[in-house]
Amino acid sequence: MALSARNQFKGKVKDVKKGMVMAEVTVEVAPGVDIVAAITTSSVDRLGLAAGKETAVVIKATSVMLDA
Amino acid sequence: MALSARNQFKGKVKDVKKGMVMAEVTVEVAPGVDIVAAITTSSVDRLGLAAGKETAVVIKATSVMLDA
Amino acid sequence: MALSARNQFKGKVKDVKKGMVMAEVTVEVAPGVDIVAAITTSSVDRLGLAAGKETAVVIKATSVMLDA
Amino acid sequence: MALSARNQFKGKVKDVKKGMVMAEVTVEVAPGVDIVAAITTSSVDRLGLAAGKETAVVIKATSVMLDA
Amino acid sequence: MALSARNQFKGKVKDVKKGMVMAEVTVEVAPGVDIVAAITTSSVDRLGLAAGKETAVVIKATSVMLDA
Amino acid sequence: MALSARNQFKGKVKDVKKGMVMAEVTVEVAPGVDIVAAITTSSVDRLGLAAGKETAVVIKATSVMLDA
Repeated sequence: MALSARNQFKGKVKDVKKGMVMAEVTVEVAPGVDIVAAITTSSVDRLGLAAGKETAVVIKATSVMLDA
Repeated sequence: MALSARNQFKGKVKDVKKGMVMAEVTVEVAPGVDIVAAITTSSVDRLGLAAGKETAVVIKATSVMLDA
Repeated sequence: MALSARNQFKGKVKDVKKGMVMAEVTVEVAPGVDIVAAITTSSVDRLGLAAGKETAVVIKATSVMLDA
Repeated sequence: MALSARNQFKGKVKDVKKGMVMAEVTVEVAPGVDIVAAITTSSVDRLGLAAGKETAVVIKATSVMLDA
Repeated sequence: MALSARNQFKGKVKDVKKGMVMAEVTVEVAPGVDIVAAITTSSVDRLGLAAGKETAVVIKATSVMLDA
Repeated sequence: MALSARNQFKGKVKDVKKGMVMAEVTVEVAPGVDIVAAITTSSVDRLGLAAGKETAVVIKATSVMLDA
């Protein structure tokens, strides 16, 4: 299957901070380049996200802004 | 001023496709790494976005998903 | 791979309306239950979305509102 | 009044998990079909959301992705 | 019914620009204060949105950023 | 630099409620008019957001809905 979301980058989980409902996951997608995701803590648990795990970052084009 | 959005990457506009209301802007943020943004055509015009222009990509953490 | 997005429903494309940049795709996820997605026209083409095609609908929990 | 959001489904709250700021609300929209919403805990309290309460799920079309 | 979305402001439609799939609607929520919405053209038609029409603007808290 | 996000309003932080991962920030953008943002607690700390601080609220047009 292929996702409609236009932006997908492979990376490795660097850090996971879990709150009661939401968690903040930092993914290194290139040396020195991190992307931060705020997802539910249940998804962190369901996907077994932890430092070192391979993951892909997915971002819908309509969620991207530009600053020029 | 500094934006609360956690993800901000510098890049250069590679391509702009303008529709009546929405436009698709492709930004190269690293060699071979493109991020696609769907923003209003009025913003493209207001910011003068065109191929070659320096820009930053901005993404709120709550808009980022992971695939693991 | 498994997506962090909490809401994923299988369905069949019922209708595709393509604009220059954005497209509106209607997916039937259960008899009489349609979900409408606004995605880029390039994604519609890349995924080969057309009436009758099997697809899954994906929605991040932070994008869901309630009306009570 | 009618909302511009294209996707609206009636359902019944099945579970509420409240954090300090965000809450996760699971709504059953059809037998065996749940939709999960991440909304503010203040909204959960303001709307009186609790298991068994009738509610509608609302999702903007630009927030919907497809996987085909 | 009451929406979980935290931000709701009454206003009057000032301008509608319709594309094939998406439309841009400008709503005046206070003298000199406009909010721009990008919604589907089908929703513009379904709600009968046109200059002068009373409407409310609705924004989920997770979609709001700050610049400080 | 100028942001593509169409909606930007100056205001003053009125209240900050911090959870482990997410925070709720209330900004008064006009006398009696508040906008609520759900952003990461790390961004609240990084920007030094606290009651009384001048800030701007930023909202992408694709995140705005109408109720008519």
